[in-house]
Amino acid sequence: MVDVTPKEPTHRRATARCRVWMANDTTNKVVANAITKGDVLAVARVAGIQAAKRTPDLIPLCHQLTIGAVYVNFTIGEDNVAVEAQVDTVDRTGVEMEALTACSVAALTIYDMCKSVDRSMVIGELTLWEKTGGRSGVYRRTSALPGGAGLDAGPLGSLDGGVAGDALGGADYDGAAIPENPVYLPDEGGRAGDLVEGDLL
Amino acid sequence: MVDVTPKEPTHRRATARCRVWMANDTTNKVVANAITKGDVLAVARVAGIQAAKRTPDLIPLCHQLTIGAVYVNFTIGEDNVAVEAQVDTVDRTGVEMEALTACSVAALTIYDMCKSVDRSMVIGELTLWEKTGGRSGVYRRTSALPGGAGLDAGPLGSLDGGVAGDALGGADYDGAAIPENPVYLPDEGGRAGDLVEGDLL
Amino acid sequence: MVDVTPKEPTHRRATARCRVWMANDTTNKVVANAITKGDVLAVARVAGIQAAKRTPDLIPLCHQLTIGAVYVNFTIGEDNVAVEAQVDTVDRTGVEMEALTACSVAALTIYDMCKSVDRSMVIGELTLWEKTGGRSGVYRRTSALPGGAGLDAGPLGSLDGGVAGDALGGADYDGAAIPENPVYLPDEGGRAGDLVEGDLL
Amino acid sequence: MVDVTPKEPTHRRATARCRVWMANDTTNKVVANAITKGDVLAVARVAGIQAAKRTPDLIPLCHQLTIGAVYVNFTIGEDNVAVEAQVDTVDRTGVEMEALTACSVAALTIYDMCKSVDRSMVIGELTLWEKTGGRSGVYRRTSALPGGAGLDAGPLGSLDGGVAGDALGGADYDGAAIPENPVYLPDEGGRAGDLVEGDLL
Amino acid sequence: MVDVTPKEPTHRRATARCRVWMANDTTNKVVANAITKGDVLAVARVAGIQAAKRTPDLIPLCHQLTIGAVYVNFTIGEDNVAVEAQVDTVDRTGVEMEALTACSVAALTIYDMCKSVDRSMVIGELTLWEKTGGRSGVYRRTSALPGGAGLDAGPLGSLDGGVAGDALGGADYDGAAIPENPVYLPDEGGRAGDLVEGDLL
Amino acid sequence: MVDVTPKEPTHRRATARCRVWMANDTTNKVVANAITKGDVLAVARVAGIQAAKRTPDLIPLCHQLTIGAVYVNFTIGEDNVAVEAQVDTVDRTGVEMEALTACSVAALTIYDMCKSVDRSMVIGELTLWEKTGGRSGVYRRTSALPGGAGLDAGPLGSLDGGVAGDALGGADYDGAAIPENPVYLPDEGGRAGDLVEGDLL
Repeated sequence: MVDVTPKEPTHRRATARCRVWMANDTTNKVVANAITKGDVLAVARVAGIQAAKRTPDLIPLCHQLTIGAVYVNFTIGEDNVAVEAQVDTVDRTGVEMEALTACSVAALTIYDMCKSVDRSMVIGELTLWEKTGGRSGVYRRTSALPGGAGLDAGPLGSLDGGVAGDALGGADYDGAAIPENPVYLPDEGGRAGDLVEGDLL
Repeated sequence: MVDVTPKEPTHRRATARCRVWMANDTTNKVVANAITKGDVLAVARVAGIQAAKRTPDLIPLCHQLTIGAVYVNFTIGEDNVAVEAQVDTVDRTGVEMEALTACSVAALTIYDMCKSVDRSMVIGELTLWEKTGGRSGVYRRTSALPGGAGLDAGPLGSLDGGVAGDALGGADYDGAAIPENPVYLPDEGGRAGDLVEGDLL
Repeated sequence: MVDVTPKEPTHRRATARCRVWMANDTTNKVVANAITKGDVLAVARVAGIQAAKRTPDLIPLCHQLTIGAVYVNFTIGEDNVAVEAQVDTVDRTGVEMEALTACSVAALTIYDMCKSVDRSMVIGELTLWEKTGGRSGVYRRTSALPGGAGLDAGPLGSLDGGVAGDALGGADYDGAAIPENPVYLPDEGGRAGDLVEGDLL
Repeated sequence: MVDVTPKEPTHRRATARCRVWMANDTTNKVVANAITKGDVLAVARVAGIQAAKRTPDLIPLCHQLTIGAVYVNFTIGEDNVAVEAQVDTVDRTGVEMEALTACSVAALTIYDMCKSVDRSMVIGELTLWEKTGGRSGVYRRTSALPGGAGLDAGPLGSLDGGVAGDALGGADYDGAAIPENPVYLPDEGGRAGDLVEGDLL
Repeated sequence: MVDVTPKEPTHRRATARCRVWMANDTTNKVVANAITKGDVLAVARVAGIQAAKRTPDLIPLCHQLTIGAVYVNFTIGEDNVAVEAQVDTVDRTGVEMEALTACSVAALTIYDMCKSVDRSMVIGELTLWEKTGGRSGVYRRTSALPGGAGLDAGPLGSLDGGVAGDALGGADYDGAAIPENPVYLPDEGGRAGDLVEGDLL
Repeated sequence: MVDVTPKEPTHRRATARCRVWMANDTTNKVVANAITKGDVLAVARVAGIQAAKRTPDLIPLCHQLTIGAVYVNFTIGEDNVAVEAQVDTVDRTGVEMEALTACSVAALTIYDMCKSVDRSMVIGELTLWEKTGGRSGVYRRTSALPGGAGLDAGPLGSLDGGVAGDALGGADYDGAAIPENPVYLPDEGGRAGDLVEGDLL
């Protein structure tokens, strides 16, 4: 483990996202809360939040830190559920692994809840989208995901839409393209204000 | 949780795979064991095995079971590290979540070890490839991953190569296309015999 | 720890219950899903299920066992939320501590979710209601809870109602007295058939 | 989870209490250290302390924090063992869930140790008694527990005795009414000075 | 992890021992229960039992299994506290790591409790003494510990005394040499009968 | 638990060491990476680091703290593997238990990996070697380990060599006496500068 004791605690935030690809019939069941195992997104949210707190127990060289906030939210598309996790801390090291782990475990939980009705699910596009605080300053993903235009042109859409350089608010993803999709509301409704319109939450 | 007490314990196995996409320079560093944080794949393997055992603690509606064996192995490609996890048990329910969780946490660990040199990494293509034992019998993934031809034609290659219906042994992935890549040997060398040639391991 | 290795594994089940007393305004908010921290009962259910699996980690002399099923359900009264947990296993020792721990942690989670609007909450009446399987046979609570008639005559009602000897289906508790109360549906709907009418679920 | 990162770390303390009701014969065995499973209160104390540290792992929306001190103490009455937990921290959020969880798991451990001799046990009256530090200032429970006068007049006594408004030092509970009861000494004897005479510890 | 699924579950037992060397003044304080942090051996016993159950979480390639019994006991010598742990299971693999881990964590706990009065403590002689069940049959330690006669002749005595081949009941250790020492009684008193006279317990 | 809330957070460091005694044939196999279970020291290092982070979960009265760095390193001798763990924090209490626990679990992991080829292994000489920061200032072990000259003169060598008062850099241990032994390199290579030449790392 890198020694972080010489650093000063500062406010840090990280946002990660991934998607669970599934049959359209499965997303419909998730929307209708018709999965017999229970409320898919409610359980996945709890699992994601808990996983964020347990990150240093899972990732061997991750530092322990005290997480100040975790948000796990979902957007249901036609053939996928998008997961977004945002983690905040005031500590000596960043929280990107916490955000990625929260996304990952929330996605695995969605898989577990839905697997009796859909065996074709695939989890993908798990990556860091934004990171602020700390010596290295602000990081925002601007490049397309691997597969670039190919993915973009396909039926799946892609996390950064076709709008290179605007990774956080691609139109395809959470804007005009899927306005008719149900958006699972953020817990505690507490994030208003610091997110631009059209964002995932 | 579904009640599994009426079931009899039987031998069950599940195999899952995913990939960590990264810059070619990063895969080179992984191969050369030149990542300053340590031996990337050795740490990721331990993390994956530990995560498999902790699955019911992470995925809320997963049953506890006693895992008989976990294998976590890696294949290093030009722009990605492929992760494969195989889990065995003699119990009342299957181990697909254990295999998926092992893959996922091994991949997150690779990300954590390499993130200081590569911020563009993306984890994807996490899915179940094989499942045996239990009432539902043998399952082998035969369909292509989401994105189908689009992905297939792209520069990334794909887990099932271009050989639809032959998902377990695509040529692109672990056959001719990457023979020159270093293959991380399976721990305990114990899996020989029950896997077809050209397989990930 | 008592040595359980000489015993044979058999099917065992335990049911425990408790209540979280709170202001009527608070139960109304729970019913209306108007607690800002999120969906109180969904989070509490997940917490209870997870706690059941972690019982031997919390209670020092509890044996490890593999839980086959956990159900955590709720009935919302005027001034309390009743919690019921049922746990099943096929193992060498019983699951009453698992059922009690699930109830307890679900109740603490309800407390945590509601504490910003209600500081007067009290958790009580946590006890074992039924236990089957194992050498000691069937146990059903028939005696009143401590406080007996005094409690019964008070404004709170009591878990065994006024019907001594019919502890599992007291009218006051989940029958005629609170028919207008919202009943949170059991997850997976899997318990039908083996419970008498008028029961908690 | 509510975002606590904007808050400053300050000293915070919380005190919670509960009771484990049991047969008089059982309390006698606890006093005489005659429970065959071992030293009931020593094991329960360790379990309570450990549970306090694991609170954010059990209660999904609880923040992680570093606990500075945990005290778990017991008073043995005729028909119950009273449990008190006090937790201190210097952090951005309070420790009431830690104190409640410590009480709860200590009580469950007492139940587990005694259950082979007494199946009638009930855990109740778990509530917060005092909370200091943080924006909301000092909180002291002044109202009676649910059941009010009914409980008070009954054979059980009650945590705040009959002395409304003096919840921390009710005569019934830890004063004159039970001077003949064995009081389990606080660990480390370190709390003298900041507690009024006659208090639980 | 070695695949244990082809094995049949059988009864297995393992016994491990270690010592915590400390100043004579410190052992006197332990005997007199005069360590201010609390009852040293009661806390160490709970820690050892809990650690046995958590072994596969600590030792990466250890299999999960359900422990049927754990005993942790102590013998206080002039300049050391000897720790013995015995673990039983009915499972597909042995429990020697569980017994060793229980000893180790109990010893670390003794160290933690006493460290404010004695900084010279050393933990040593941690080894497996007996193992029964499983394909490899009965194992009993017969050779002396490393250091052989040198240690034996020293002021410390040694776990197997000078009686080679009689490792389980050396006179120096728990026989004539320290009869005047307080022996902490086994929990639950349940082991009588299957241990030869003069044994640690 | 001692109340540490009145203390100010300061930088603290602790270094602990132990040895795993084994047959010379076994150390040869460890050096040659010929243990079939896998890379012994890589797995042991991860286990040690993870254990350091989990110390308050294992040792009941240990405070939680956020570890800033953990180093676990090994020196392979003829008949033993020496383990050293160094832990750093900026917190209100010291990290000696974290360093000792890391050593202990790394040693247990070495035992687990090698036990199929060597049943004679013994773990010993686990003790604190250095501690800095906090009110009590610098502590360095200067006295010999128990057994003193006896051990020193024996075939085993000893952790502090024959150089009393120079516990950190004994020649026998990591200097001239075993220059031909393979030294496992520290992870992250980050400790250079603050350690004297000839030291374990």
